[in-house]
Amino acid sequence: MSRQSLTIEELNAVVVSRRGGDPAASYTARLFERGVAQCAKKLGEEGVELAIAAVAGDRDAVRGEAADLLYHLVVLLAASGVTLEEVYAELGRREGMSGLTEKANRHT
Amino acid sequence: MSRQSLTIEELNAVVVSRRGGDPAASYTARLFERGVAQCAKKLGEEGVELAIAAVAGDRDAVRGEAADLLYHLVVLLAASGVTLEEVYAELGRREGMSGLTEKANRHT
Amino acid sequence: MSRQSLTIEELNAVVVSRRGGDPAASYTARLFERGVAQCAKKLGEEGVELAIAAVAGDRDAVRGEAADLLYHLVVLLAASGVTLEEVYAELGRREGMSGLTEKANRHT
Amino acid sequence: MSRQSLTIEELNAVVVSRRGGDPAASYTARLFERGVAQCAKKLGEEGVELAIAAVAGDRDAVRGEAADLLYHLVVLLAASGVTLEEVYAELGRREGMSGLTEKANRHT
Repeated sequence: MSRQSLTIEELNAVVVSRRGGDPAASYTARLFERGVAQCAKKLGEEGVELAIAAVAGDRDAVRGEAADLLYHLVVLLAASGVTLEEVYAELGRREGMSGLTEKANRHT
Repeated sequence: MSRQSLTIEELNAVVVSRRGGDPAASYTARLFERGVAQCAKKLGEEGVELAIAAVAGDRDAVRGEAADLLYHLVVLLAASGVTLEEVYAELGRREGMSGLTEKANRHT
Repeated sequence: MSRQSLTIEELNAVVVSRRGGDPAASYTARLFERGVAQCAKKLGEEGVELAIAAVAGDRDAVRGEAADLLYHLVVLLAASGVTLEEVYAELGRREGMSGLTEKANRHT
Repeated sequence: MSRQSLTIEELNAVVVSRRGGDPAASYTARLFERGVAQCAKKLGEEGVELAIAAVAGDRDAVRGEAADLLYHLVVLLAASGVTLEEVYAELGRREGMSGLTEKANRHT
């Protein structure tokens, strides 16, 4: 990965650090200040935009909209008091179950 | 992080490995087979569901819907031929720009 | 309009009449029983599906998804205690304002 | 209905009349000029906003967002070459079927 890449975990750490920051100095702090409904609205809208970019087959737009979606996802999680680790634990729980399902399917 | 956690990078590796797999053995393979428009629809719907869970203040639902959203995000990226690394590079490019912006704001 | 057409006003009257009806006898009554968050989720999802159908240029799907959206819109209005007439009054208020704007633009 | 109300059918007639109009004089003409993907994006976003307003229990916002949704629906239909009458015919076809279903349920 290039030196300029930012993983979702790194992005999450940056976003969490801006919670309660000066709204005049950071777009992220302004989002938190506007409240969870506004953060939720942005997340939902980014989902629509990414879906449209994908159906249009516009790979550049998919890349940009996916970045927007990840940003607004970590903002919404922080605004909701849910950590990224909790979401990863949930993913692990599901993959554990579906892994078993797929193994079972393989045997039939 | 617990032993059962699954990061988005690990989830992405699992999902990418199932592309072209047997649709009878894997839900993920079935999603790929149904095409990018169907994957896009699921992503958009998960965005709506997460937004609603957050506005309702239901932290358990936020955790579950965020997990669903991450899953459908990596599926849609794979279906679109965009890698997670490309999205991280885009995030790095943006954070680089906004980092400068915030530094500049701090000095004024 | 053909004998089998149903306007949104007629659809609205049908939907409102089913509020409080037997959930076993009507899909609409079941939606009401599941509550406003469930109705909101359906509305948001139909918006995503219609957007995708339009971007895909699939006119048959646009027609079907638009019908679904209008149905879930009148359900959500009823579940929210807002009448279609109130929405029409709001549309009139906006059109009144934008009509003036467009007239003003025409004169410059 | 008050003198200032505007039905969806009237709104649709206004919007259709602005297709191909001067983008400098009308927001609606600008939307058409930006293309169907942009119109679809607006529709999808309005669906998200209405869903959030409903879950938040904000009746004023529901009224306003529903008006926005209807406006962007008739714009998207026009941009897609689908008439409101075609959507009403589809609604009639569905209601015809579900009407029969509900009658059958009532007899059992």
